[in-house]
Amino acid sequence: MKQKGMKSFSLSIVLIICLLIYTPLIADEGMWTFDNLPLKLLKEKYGFEPSQEWIEHVRLSCVRINDGGSGSFVSPNGLVMTNQHVMRGQLQKLSTPENDYVKNGFYANSPADELKCPDVELNVLVSMDNVSEQVHNAAKNLNDQEGLKARAAEISKIQKESFDSTGLRSDVITLYQGGEYWLYRYKKYTDIRLVFAAEQQIAFYGGYLDNFTYPRYELDMALVRVYENGKPIESKHFLKWNSKGAVEGELVFVVGNPGSTDRMMTMAQLETQREIVLPMILKSIKRRLNVLKNYAASGSEQARQVVAAIAGTENGLKSITGEYNGLLDKDLMKQKQDDENKFRTAVNANAEWKKTYGSAWNDIAKAQKKYEEYFKIQRFRSVPNGSMANMALRLVRYASELTKADADRMNGYHDAQLESFKRSLQSTAPVYPELDEKLLINAFEESLELLGPKDLFVKTILNGRTPAEAASEIVNGTKLNDRDFRKSLIEGGPAAIDASNDPMLVFARKIDPILRESGTSFRDQIASVEVASGEKIGKARFAVYGKSMYPDATFTLRFAFGTVKGYPSNGTLAAPITTYYGLYDRALGFGLKEPFHLPARYMERKDKLDLSTPSNFATTCDIIGGNSGSPVINRNGEVVGLIHDGNMEGLVGNFIYNDETGRAVSDHSAGMIMALRKLYDADRIANELEGK
Amino acid sequence: MKQKGMKSFSLSIVLIICLLIYTPLIADEGMWTFDNLPLKLLKEKYGFEPSQEWIEHVRLSCVRINDGGSGSFVSPNGLVMTNQHVMRGQLQKLSTPENDYVKNGFYANSPADELKCPDVELNVLVSMDNVSEQVHNAAKNLNDQEGLKARAAEISKIQKESFDSTGLRSDVITLYQGGEYWLYRYKKYTDIRLVFAAEQQIAFYGGYLDNFTYPRYELDMALVRVYENGKPIESKHFLKWNSKGAVEGELVFVVGNPGSTDRMMTMAQLETQREIVLPMILKSIKRRLNVLKNYAASGSEQARQVVAAIAGTENGLKSITGEYNGLLDKDLMKQKQDDENKFRTAVNANAEWKKTYGSAWNDIAKAQKKYEEYFKIQRFRSVPNGSMANMALRLVRYASELTKADADRMNGYHDAQLESFKRSLQSTAPVYPELDEKLLINAFEESLELLGPKDLFVKTILNGRTPAEAASEIVNGTKLNDRDFRKSLIEGGPAAIDASNDPMLVFARKIDPILRESGTSFRDQIASVEVASGEKIGKARFAVYGKSMYPDATFTLRFAFGTVKGYPSNGTLAAPITTYYGLYDRALGFGLKEPFHLPARYMERKDKLDLSTPSNFATTCDIIGGNSGSPVINRNGEVVGLIHDGNMEGLVGNFIYNDETGRAVSDHSAGMIMALRKLYDADRIANELEGK
Repeated sequence: MKQKGMKSFSLSIVLIICLLIYTPLIADEGMWTFDNLPLKLLKEKYGFEPSQEWIEHVRLSCVRINDGGSGSFVSPNGLVMTNQHVMRGQLQKLSTPENDYVKNGFYANSPADELKCPDVELNVLVSMDNVSEQVHNAAKNLNDQEGLKARAAEISKIQKESFDSTGLRSDVITLYQGGEYWLYRYKKYTDIRLVFAAEQQIAFYGGYLDNFTYPRYELDMALVRVYENGKPIESKHFLKWNSKGAVEGELVFVVGNPGSTDRMMTMAQLETQREIVLPMILKSIKRRLNVLKNYAASGSEQARQVVAAIAGTENGLKSITGEYNGLLDKDLMKQKQDDENKFRTAVNANAEWKKTYGSAWNDIAKAQKKYEEYFKIQRFRSVPNGSMANMALRLVRYASELTKADADRMNGYHDAQLESFKRSLQSTAPVYPELDEKLLINAFEESLELLGPKDLFVKTILNGRTPAEAASEIVNGTKLNDRDFRKSLIEGGPAAIDASNDPMLVFARKIDPILRESGTSFRDQIASVEVASGEKIGKARFAVYGKSMYPDATFTLRFAFGTVKGYPSNGTLAAPITTYYGLYDRALGFGLKEPFHLPARYMERKDKLDLSTPSNFATTCDIIGGNSGSPVINRNGEVVGLIHDGNMEGLVGNFIYNDETGRAVSDHSAGMIMALRKLYDADRIANELEGK
Repeated sequence: MKQKGMKSFSLSIVLIICLLIYTPLIADEGMWTFDNLPLKLLKEKYGFEPSQEWIEHVRLSCVRINDGGSGSFVSPNGLVMTNQHVMRGQLQKLSTPENDYVKNGFYANSPADELKCPDVELNVLVSMDNVSEQVHNAAKNLNDQEGLKARAAEISKIQKESFDSTGLRSDVITLYQGGEYWLYRYKKYTDIRLVFAAEQQIAFYGGYLDNFTYPRYELDMALVRVYENGKPIESKHFLKWNSKGAVEGELVFVVGNPGSTDRMMTMAQLETQREIVLPMILKSIKRRLNVLKNYAASGSEQARQVVAAIAGTENGLKSITGEYNGLLDKDLMKQKQDDENKFRTAVNANAEWKKTYGSAWNDIAKAQKKYEEYFKIQRFRSVPNGSMANMALRLVRYASELTKADADRMNGYHDAQLESFKRSLQSTAPVYPELDEKLLINAFEESLELLGPKDLFVKTILNGRTPAEAASEIVNGTKLNDRDFRKSLIEGGPAAIDASNDPMLVFARKIDPILRESGTSFRDQIASVEVASGEKIGKARFAVYGKSMYPDATFTLRFAFGTVKGYPSNGTLAAPITTYYGLYDRALGFGLKEPFHLPARYMERKDKLDLSTPSNFATTCDIIGGNSGSPVINRNGEVVGLIHDGNMEGLVGNFIYNDETGRAVSDHSAGMIMALRKLYDADRIANELEGK
């Protein structure tokens, strides 16, 4: 009797594991790397078998846009399609008080009118090499802290060697939490010219309110052209345009660069996110948003200066709120707990796996106990991103890091990264000292509140003064708002930077050692354990599930698939597709009030449009922030849409894929081409897209 | 120190009570009786002061439709506006396999084409008299059970006296849970002729899916005309039509007959609803729906027969699910608990109130303990509403009740009620024995499952047979599906009914005493306590809050007010108004698939329409089921809309008013008049509405 009982038990374990392995294969789930596409699943579920040629063509047609988005070549002449919101920062940097390209949009009537973007970089993934063995071997037999350093040095070495030998941007990508390391080589483009951008009012229709929702009616579209040597490149690989576009139930693909996901987090890590990290971040974002809005309220020019920053911050707020709500969802957390229990049971059922990987979850859980203390230090000993204080800090670090061997440098200062570094600091984008000061005061106040007056960083930045006094002094004395000054420092190199008495640089020199030390403490106490244990868990996943899993997103090229599909929403169904009728319904339903008003051309030219033309559509494709601007393509590899958002229900996608109600939201190719021709008189470009 | 502490305590109680009294005055809350309109609030909040003439005119312009809805006179020639779904039962009864008025709609091209409805009754509230003292006195010094009987007898007496002296339908209405009793006299109309009804496909656009949701795009409109002596009546009081209709932010009013609410339930009663009653009812509705759907699936003629029954059942299911979800909402229940605590604190703070009313909550709570047992008996010892078994039961009861004095009869068989009784049993509506049998089998099976084989009722109906055998026997032998047979029984009176050996009547005679006894047990054990304690609580409410409160809904005429207003929904805002653009967006977004396809005329005549015309709109007016068909009127007493639904978020309105997200949903007068003229060629009626 007992024997039999044992047997059934083992059998049920096997069954559970089989079910586990099979489950992900049913849903349209996954942000797959191009070395491991779900070909078997696509064949079985959809009868689709892409050729190697198809796969390579698609990969080489897609680009990463280093402002945080994706795009694709859509003509043989270097034309790239992406979102207006991906290009919004560039549009703003190109704008002046007289000429607001964010508000008014942009269209280049002729090639000569195409407008050079100040500081955006496009990358095409040209090769992928598995360097896991090299990186893993580097850390063999070392403890966690030593291993972390050794891996970083090895990665830096691989990158440098690749860059030196190929001249290509060379990034080692950590996949499966360190379960694999890959060397990705990119062809890099930096002469990017603006061809078309829709007005903010239609590109971000409904503003913050409609963001992350569906049904939607945006034309979140921008087109840029890649130049080299002053001429458009010949883009051999580009996606053909399909003007009919996607229809309900159609199998489609999204190829782009999802930024990051945390789907492999352990329960202990998720709880830390829910209890400590996200509430703290949400509070911090709200503070910053408040500062930006007060600034915008002080004048129309001020409002223009921060429109992109406000939109971006609100976007972040809604997005993180969605994630946070996901973590508060008891059903979701139970599902994650069940998954973890099953996974750990499977690991512990194998003696070898148990010995090698079994302790990882508890090690991570132990590290979480110190998380709050070190997270606060890491997060709130800082200066605002994009501020002059941040520029100063980067200059100071550049000066000191350049004196070291490449392998010993901080991330961001390796030889292969210096070109991007220099370009971003020499950006022609205007700096607004008044705004910079307000954001710095807010940051100083926040540090004081959260770390207390006795904190070393706080004592250093304030030195007996109020946050306002401290910020005012360095902002008002600096010349870092002057691009030429920054350029001269970079060109002058470490010597010039070290010699400068600019108060912002003096300030940066004071805080740099404190920030380095703070980063180290978080790394040593928390990150090293999470990385080392994460690697174990990643390897355990391989052991249990093989490569039937996809890795967490890493802002590298991924392949997703799904169908055009509505979903249960608001007590009924959301339609798979919206039309231009819906745009006018929403605008008029609100009496054309902001943020639901329409650009003038949409009112004047309404009768020229076929309003039954699709505007946006929803798909089950597995995407996340960073996928913005990704093409949606059909079985023929043709463009049928343009990803611009996900819905609220999909925001939990950071932690778990939700195909019941989560959806990727796209512009529809039929609506895009109609708008170009009928609303924007952009036949030059519409013809180029349609190959006419 | 102690003295001061005491004083602050008392002061805070006073403050709490003041806040309590003030709170309801802030929101657009309330289903107010016409003797107690919120005039002070309307003046203070909206600067609106209706004259007594305005009030009386509006009251006399509105009607109750005894199929469970509301309506209003909209021309001097007896034209009444209501919902298609209020008239749906009549439309179906008028339909034949060749002529399906539910599916195809109806329009009378000329007065001669106006089609007589089989069995609908319209009531106009002509007078209201407070008879509280009489009814309260009748039960003075009696125990709960005796008091219940004495009150019922007194009510019956008042009704009879009124009917005898005026000839008007005379109903004594219980308000404030017995805190007040009012004699309402109605002018009754029974010759109601169909003038217009929209097709089901647009009247119930999106079907069960879109029901109780918003944004909506329905034309849920029907027009009937009231005749007397073969001619349209002269309706002196009617609402003028406003073809511009309501705009965002406008103050509007809804006058109609909300069916019932449970806003005065105690926490103990709400918990009984949540734990016992609603789960049981939901399960029962799902069973019935399943039977109807299986029947519909058996053929197109069968499908036609039950289309209205399915829609009605699905409507009930979604509605009760919404209420149930409201009760599962922890915040909502906490709010109700807080309200009850404050109310009881206020009662207990006054020695006299405490003595008179203080025990009511505990008495109700005690009665709840026996609720499940008696509720099951009351609910599942029964035959389906509208079935031949139900007709038989009513005939048998008619025969026996008629031998008693009016005051001693069961409710439904008093002299004043007999005319309605006879008309409903002599309805020309077809009876479908095949369907009747299936519903009876389901009811028998349900009784068996829930009450068990040993239950007296179950033993009696089955008598050793299966539910199917038992039902088949009586359905197949009966002649009650024949209207002439039913008519002959009624005309023959008790003697004819008692003499009949029709198997359905024989069956009814067997179950009648059991059902009477079952009803009595629930009444004695539960209802009597709830009514008596409810009366105490109602009186306590008067004592604490005065008539700043409105009573629970009782399917009598009420006045609600509010503004045209969007609300937070689906992560963004729902627009206050929808347009015809939105209808086409939704239809095309689903590829014109059922239930989102459009009637042919909507496709063919699309270009004749101004699609920017409002279709539906949302208001904060406090409504509930029974308000369907109510006019939405502006300050001038003109029709600007037609209530047809509430949204999901408003379903908790059964227990608590929710102005944050709950909304009443209406057809817009501009959309209605455009549809009549451009889609239905109904200029004859459109001109009548617009007074042309």
